[in-house]
Amino acid sequence: MPDFREPISRGAGARQRVLQAALQVLHDDGPPGFTMEAVARRAGASKATLYRHWSTSGALMVDAMDATFQPFPVPDTGRVETDVAQLLNAFVAVLEHTPFPRLLAAFMDAAERDPALAELHADLTRRRREPVLAVLTRARDRGQLSAELDLELVTDLLTAPFFYHRFVAHRPIPPGLVDHVIAHVLATGHKSAE
Amino acid sequence: MPDFREPISRGAGARQRVLQAALQVLHDDGPPGFTMEAVARRAGASKATLYRHWSTSGALMVDAMDATFQPFPVPDTGRVETDVAQLLNAFVAVLEHTPFPRLLAAFMDAAERDPALAELHADLTRRRREPVLAVLTRARDRGQLSAELDLELVTDLLTAPFFYHRFVAHRPIPPGLVDHVIAHVLATGHKSAE
Repeated sequence: MPDFREPISRGAGARQRVLQAALQVLHDDGPPGFTMEAVARRAGASKATLYRHWSTSGALMVDAMDATFQPFPVPDTGRVETDVAQLLNAFVAVLEHTPFPRLLAAFMDAAERDPALAELHADLTRRRREPVLAVLTRARDRGQLSAELDLELVTDLLTAPFFYHRFVAHRPIPPGLVDHVIAHVLATGHKSAE
Repeated sequence: MPDFREPISRGAGARQRVLQAALQVLHDDGPPGFTMEAVARRAGASKATLYRHWSTSGALMVDAMDATFQPFPVPDTGRVETDVAQLLNAFVAVLEHTPFPRLLAAFMDAAERDPALAELHADLTRRRREPVLAVLTRARDRGQLSAELDLELVTDLLTAPFFYHRFVAHRPIPPGLVDHVIAHVLATGHKSAE
């Protein structure tokens, strides 16, 4: 469930309803239609209730995005490729079988127009990257990956192709992509261009 | 300049004006405000003129996106890393110093809601990938890269991190990222996890 960062004064039920309503408004109307008023109407709540929890519609939008999927648990199969594959396959399932990508596309557009929203989403992205970073860091500590690897860069290379396929190339994600990306990014085995 | 795919019946000037107006409307109002009527008004042209060139507002939007930057020429420095670096640095400059990213964000949102638009943008993306693919293919033909490499995958890995930084992580692109991505994706030099 979402990682609520404020105490819930009126019970999780009411807050959940507002977040659900926020996602519906973002999904149906996109960022231009996303106002505190529209969400309050959809949730059957007062604007005052919304403002008690969220100071801006941008903060509400980020919390609603946060609620779209749980951070994945950190797997530990003993093999770093298998751990990363579990995380990436779980993410591909979210891209393919939930409303998340449509919401994220709306959100990316809104963030281009509002730097405060971009900053909030940067935090959210950092939290979502953490399981991949944790798996890579552990493998490095165990000597399975080179100590010289830049793990932030490796995390970029492992995750970015899935966003790219969906939002830029508009191509379906082929069944082998997770394994091919991992094999290329984590393994040697091809000639250097030197 | 844009790769116009239809004969221009009333002179390039008029068509250019419409494309420019289309970009302004997309930039200012986003996809919800992007209609043939709004673009015609901004261009000072009739809707009939627009429909002579474009059958739908989606087709016009794609041509306008196509006009935002020229396909890059294919460099040939003799060293594949340098060739790829030239292409990626040129793309980073487009991301950092032009209205393109804001337009692309609006476009990605619109494409999630309209499969025809996604298909048109898939074609545009394929054409924009071609210089990178050409450089990699030539390096493979010259024996500088392994014959077993999946060059489509390598192109994904080389380009996706820049979209990811801008649109998902909302982080500035650090000066060394182009070189680090190329070094990791095209080189060996780190331990396998096996």
